[in-house]
This record gives sequence, structure tokens and C-alpha cells, in this order.
Amino acid sequence: MLFQKSTYIERRQQLRALVGKGLILLFGNNDAPSNYPANPYKFRQDSSFLYFFGQHRDGLVGVIDADSGREILVGNEIDIDDIVWYGAVNSVKAMAEETGVAETLPMAALADLVSQAKAQGREVHFLPVARHDLKIQIADLVGQHPLSLQASQQLIDAVVTLRSVKTAEEIAELERASAIGYKMHTTAMRLAAQGGVTEQYIAGVIDGIANSYGRGTSFQSIVTTHGEVLHGYPSARLIEQGKLLLCDAGAETNECYCSDHTRTTPVGGRYTPQQRDIYDIVVDCHDLALQVARPGVRYLDVHLDVCRLMTERLIALGLMKGNVEDAVQAGAHALFLPHGLGHMMGMDVHDMEGLGQVHVGYDAKTRPSSQFGLGALRMGRELQEGFVVTDEPGIYFIPALIDQWRANGTNADFLNFDKIEQFKHFGGIRIEDDLLITADGCRFLGEERIPYHAEEVEAFVQ
Amino acid sequence: MLFQKSTYIERRQQLRALVGKGLILLFGNNDAPSNYPANPYKFRQDSSFLYFFGQHRDGLVGVIDADSGREILVGNEIDIDDIVWYGAVNSVKAMAEETGVAETLPMAALADLVSQAKAQGREVHFLPVARHDLKIQIADLVGQHPLSLQASQQLIDAVVTLRSVKTAEEIAELERASAIGYKMHTTAMRLAAQGGVTEQYIAGVIDGIANSYGRGTSFQSIVTTHGEVLHGYPSARLIEQGKLLLCDAGAETNECYCSDHTRTTPVGGRYTPQQRDIYDIVVDCHDLALQVARPGVRYLDVHLDVCRLMTERLIALGLMKGNVEDAVQAGAHALFLPHGLGHMMGMDVHDMEGLGQVHVGYDAKTRPSSQFGLGALRMGRELQEGFVVTDEPGIYFIPALIDQWRANGTNADFLNFDKIEQFKHFGGIRIEDDLLITADGCRFLGEERIPYHAEEVEAFVQ
Repeated sequence: MLFQKSTYIERRQQLRALVGKGLILLFGNNDAPSNYPANPYKFRQDSSFLYFFGQHRDGLVGVIDADSGREILVGNEIDIDDIVWYGAVNSVKAMAEETGVAETLPMAALADLVSQAKAQGREVHFLPVARHDLKIQIADLVGQHPLSLQASQQLIDAVVTLRSVKTAEEIAELERASAIGYKMHTTAMRLAAQGGVTEQYIAGVIDGIANSYGRGTSFQSIVTTHGEVLHGYPSARLIEQGKLLLCDAGAETNECYCSDHTRTTPVGGRYTPQQRDIYDIVVDCHDLALQVARPGVRYLDVHLDVCRLMTERLIALGLMKGNVEDAVQAGAHALFLPHGLGHMMGMDVHDMEGLGQVHVGYDAKTRPSSQFGLGALRMGRELQEGFVVTDEPGIYFIPALIDQWRANGTNADFLNFDKIEQFKHFGGIRIEDDLLITADGCRFLGEERIPYHAEEVEAFVQ
Repeated sequence: MLFQKSTYIERRQQLRALVGKGLILLFGNNDAPSNYPANPYKFRQDSSFLYFFGQHRDGLVGVIDADSGREILVGNEIDIDDIVWYGAVNSVKAMAEETGVAETLPMAALADLVSQAKAQGREVHFLPVARHDLKIQIADLVGQHPLSLQASQQLIDAVVTLRSVKTAEEIAELERASAIGYKMHTTAMRLAAQGGVTEQYIAGVIDGIANSYGRGTSFQSIVTTHGEVLHGYPSARLIEQGKLLLCDAGAETNECYCSDHTRTTPVGGRYTPQQRDIYDIVVDCHDLALQVARPGVRYLDVHLDVCRLMTERLIALGLMKGNVEDAVQAGAHALFLPHGLGHMMGMDVHDMEGLGQVHVGYDAKTRPSSQFGLGALRMGRELQEGFVVTDEPGIYFIPALIDQWRANGTNADFLNFDKIEQFKHFGGIRIEDDLLITADGCRFLGEERIPYHAEEVEAFVQ
């Protein structure tokens, strides 16, 4: 376990108080098959289970009776065959003791617990689960269809309230993830500068670093000279001199805390003048967020500040035109920035996204937009001390989107399509760091900064 | 696609002929969530779908009407949002054409196809699926519970018949996987010899190699100085001088063909005399399989030959006693070798294991055993030209198993428990290569042999 027993006890007490009554079930993950059941992907514990119960073994369910305060760790013991194949592990009882839970039960007892609660007319709270094996298990327990389970809004809200604010000890673990991210990105930048390798080669090397120093990557590494594809997975193509390599990748520590950084650096080691024109805008947008994000400010407004600066600079370059405020209000800049400035980050790289993005990134005061671009902003609500959010502006030239907007005349008042044509095969640039909101402002996570100002990058990769 | 269109057309014709009648559904895989739905594990296509339809995209189902010969590729087209986030991909129609399928339908049409077939009293054939999202999808289509689906034995048998025999072009792809495996294992051996790193560090480096040159590892790498744990995942411990590092790892090509090798090499670069005593037995057992495996021989008998040699040599060392034949018949050697000599290998590292191991490794003539050790032999049936099987003998000293057998007096007539105590913390050794059954014998896959004879290893890592 990452933290002291008392941390987990306290978190469960807070959760119980926030939910108030009913039976709370927190499902741990099981092994997930890759191509056949006995060949699983690398195990990843459910983040909320880990947050409240701290244990990494598969096949566990944490139960908290919010009325009585009874706590149970549900799971089956291993046998001699398991020991021969996978080695000895702690008993369920030992794991329960370690995390301060008094009681254990085998998995077969879970159905009785749930039906007793239901017979007493008590609410059974569970979170949305990503894994389909858990969907089936829950469906059988509560008598719903696995694809239309009714998760508990009260439990979602309580978990989001607690997990949103990172404690000092959690921040220390996020810094450890960031240190792995530093190794990954500086390695990728140098490989890009050298050239002569495939995107897949570079991705493999940085995935290896993530696996060597932690649980692995926090998401599938995006390593591509087609930066205009927002989630462009690495191809087996050689990287081409003169292109920019976009690398968006993060690490997860063995205890499942994440990092998430993006750098866009030149194959061959030098940015061209045209690349600098766009690159420097993204750098300035990225740095702007660092100036304005602080407690009490909505991240939606930080996003819009960035959009205004970007629009102003794209007007100066001749790619956009008209009034900055009107262009941003119309969403014209979204041709270049079709995603949001950032998302919450923590144990999940998009923290708690599985609980429903709208519950994590928005609240009663700040509602999501349906406008193209702004609608993809994952985090809009007011910042609090202890929040960790990504700061990841980008400028992309997406041929299919340019063609569609031009054909439809979308935002034609604000876009110089003829000039944009000259950049059509430019690709895309994104720069991303992870912002910790402090008492009076914010700072980037990471003791060593991965270079991103153009001159810094060029000097670093020489 | 890896092969010519004609290959896939021919495979589907053979499948149709073997199944004879009814509606055949071959489900491709979907993205599998790691910690939340939008954060999937690296995509892995279903091997049987890939074998017959050749396409790597998620969200596809291949349909073959065995009666009429009608073939349909079922899947939904992508939209502009998909292009912005993931890039342009081939249309379903283009993928169908590429693999020689005349017709396409959207996913919503699948339910109608199935209910029409059922209304006509025709059988709907589907394979066992590993993924729980597919279990739910199939459950809804055929009206069964997702955890008790009735797969088609006829379809299983037909697929096993076809996939068991590897063609020359498949063997060429397996050789490519083996070449990646060579890089992985020789790197791990050298890192072990140097020492000063963690198991997790070494695993990360070789996982990185697998990702750099192929789709990734063919299973989670086993990298451990506790070789006695058969599937011992890497720990964050530094590897200890004087121990043996067992590394069981494989690569998968981008087209999903596998390799699977194990080497057990000394931390520090030299085997101790006690390690050599055991190591050389495993080497000779490993080499024996190469001498006796050939078409017409049951792999069960190769396994038993290896067990006899191992027992003879363990008697000579004083760890076992009594008559070799009786000891093997009683399963006494299984204290040291609690698993089988090998398994089929191909597009799945345990090839087709998801279809049911008994259907892949056994037949009417050769039935599985329930004896401890022999019961874990995944492949027993008669070998044919074109089969690829692993040859992976091992000797392990598993403290929990030794204690259990000693306490129960299990096979006490054949085991010198006092002598065994002296080896209790020895660990374990396994050596594994992949055997291709040829017309008149067999050969190891891999153009370059990963060193395994003790002197070769010591010379190699210097």
C-alpha cells in the first residue's frame, strides 16, 4: 500500500459521511483478457477502489455500510495451484488488516449482502464501471442489464469531491510519475533529433522506460509526425526530416499515479521558420495558463483566455481575421484547436473520467458547452487548491476538417481559407504540462522541466 | 493485411466446407478499457477473426452463411470526429473488398441476420469469446446469459483444424516474431550478467524492444530471480548476485504472430557448480525433445520421454530414488516439473487456447490426464507437419509444494526429501524454444539461436 492505514480509514469515513446511508460497493478490477482468458493485459486496479482500499490484487470488492459503519473486504483466498503459478500473496484477511478493514467475506457472499440490503429497502450504491466483466457481475447482483446499470449519483459526487483535491502525499507520488515522464520525453526528443527510426521504435523505447520505472504508460503513447491527428498512434513509418514529431505520453507509478506531457520537436533537431511561427504561439498559450490559473478561477475561463491569445496571434499571421472576441465566441479558432485546454489528472490520466466527465469537470455553476471545440473541454469548473489539471494547447491543420469547413462556409468571416491552404500539410503542435493549483496560483509538476521553448529544445537535442 | 486476398478467401471457403451449414459469426475485438472507457489497452484483434478476415480495426464482425456462401463484413463507418481524433481509416467497404468479402452491413443489422437464421431453424455458430463486451453482445443476440454462452463445437473443431497447421507464409511471420525475441532475450541476459538493476527494469527494456519492433509482448514478461514461481512477474527488487534470472518472454509482430522463449541465466555472468548440476539436466531435456518430436509422435510421449530423462538425472543427483518408469508413472517428478513440456503456438502464444485447451491439445485418441503435473500438459496429441509447439522443460524447487508433499508423504518412495531440503531456496530453471514440426522431424524457429548451453551463455554475456 502506498499510504498509511490511517489514510485509507479516514478516506472511507469521509466517503461514508458524504453518502450518508445505504450499502456502498466499490469494485476492484479483475484481470482483463487480451486474446484469451489466461493471457491478460497487465493488471490495472480500479482507481477508486485503490483510493479507498489501497490493495492491488484482482478479485476484490470493498463494502462500506454507510448506516452501520460496517466495512468488509470481499475476495477469495488463493490455493496451492495459485502459489505454484503466481507465487504466495497476502491473504484477504491480511490485506483487510493492512487497510484497516475489520471483516472479510468470500465473493460468493456478496449476493446475500446485496439482497439483504434490497430486502430492507436500502439503497445499494455502486459507481459506473469500465470493465464489462464487472458490468455483468453487477447486473446479476442488482437485476439490471449490464449495459444500462444505474450507478449512484450520490456515490459519484462523493468520490469526485474527495479525489479531486490531491494531498501533499499524493502530489509527491505525482512528482514521481513526472520524473519518469521526464526520462521518456527527453529520450524521445533526442531520438527525433537523430532521425532514422520509426515512430513505433521511439514509442517502444519510451514505453519501455515507463515499464522499467513504473507500472507502464498512463495511456497509449501518441508518437507521430501527423500531429494533426489528436490521438495519432505510432506507425511503422520512418520519421521524415523536416517534420515535427508530436509525442504525447505519460507514465504511471507502480501505485497508479500518472503524468501526462506532450512535446512537439523537430526531426533533425531544428525548427523551420514556418514551424516557429506556429510553435511559438503554442508556447505562449501554454505559458499563459500558468499565469492565470489559480483557486477561484474557472478553467473554462483559462481555456477562453488561451483561445483569445491564439486567435489574436493567428490573425497577426493572416490565418484568421476579424474581431478576436467575436471569433472566439463563434468558435472559429476551434478549426485549429478542436479540443479543450485540459483535464483533471491524478490516479487516472483523465482523472475520474469513468465516473462521467460532466460530474468531474463541471458543476451547477459551470455547465458544458455543445459548441464544436469548446464541447471537448473536459474540465471547466472553478479551480481549487490541490487540483491537478493539464495545460495542453495545440494548433492543428486537419485537412478533412479544413475541407469540410471551407465547403460549408463555417466561420468564413473569421478564417482566411486561402492562407490556411498553405499550411494544409503542416501537421500539428501540442505542448502539455501538468498544473498543480496552489494556494495562490499554480505551478507545473516535475522537478526537472522537459524543455519546450524552441531555443531550449534545439540546444537540448544537439 | 498480412497475406494476399486469395489466402483469406480460401480459408473462409475451407471453414464453410468444414462447418457445412448454419450461420457463422466471427467476432472481432473491441477496444478494452484499462481504467476508464476512453483509456483502452493497446488494441489486440481476435486471432480467429484475423485469420479469416485479416483486418485489424475494432468493431467488426465477420459473417459467413455456410449454406448460401454469402459473406458479410459487419461494422460501422467512422465520422469526422473519429478522423479528428484518430485519423482517417479505410471504410468498411474498402476493408471488405481487400479481404474478398462482397457485402457489408452496419452493426445494427446483425440482430436481424441472427433472428432470421433462428426463425428459419438454422444453427448460429459462434466461438467462445474471451472479452466480456462480446459476451454481452452475443448474449443479447442469442438470448443466453453472457457467462454461459453455448459456443459451436463444430465451429471450434473446424477453426482448430485449420489454424493448427501453419503454412510457409505463416512460418515466415513466426520467424519475424522470433527475431524480435532474440533481441529481447539477448538484451535481458546481458543486463542480468551486469547486475545492479531491478527485475522490473529488465522487463521494461525487453517490453520496449517488443513494442519498438512489433505489436508488443505476446504475453506479460516473466522476469524473476524466483524462477520457482512459474509465472513470476517482475518485482521492483534489485537482482541479487549469485541468483539465476528466469526470463520467459515473447514478441508479437504487428500482424499478431508470436514468439515464446525462456532463458535462465546467471546474475553476474557465471553459473555456480550447484546451478550447473540442475541447469545441465534442463538443457539435456530441452535437447531431447528436438530429437524425438516428429509427425506421428504424440507430444504426450515426448513429454514423458523428457520426464524419464529428468527423473533418471535427478536420481543420479540423489534428489529422487527408485525406478525411473515407476516414478514417472506415479508423477513423482512433477514436484520439480509441475507443468507440461509445451503448448501450441501461433497467432496466440498458447495457440487457440481460448477455444478450449482440450480441443486444441487433445483428441479422441489422446485424452488429457488429471494427474498433478501431467494434467497441466496443454498439448498431448499426435504431431503433424506444420504444427508449432513450445519445448520448455523446467526444474523448480517450490518451497510450499515441497512442504506439502513432505507433510503428506506424497510420492515419498521416489523423493529424497532430506536432499531436496538442501535445494529448497534454489529457485527454478526453464529453457524454452519454439519447435516447428517438419516433414521428417522438427527444428527450432529462429534464424539466430539465443544461447542456452551453459558455456555458450557464459561466453555470450562476457
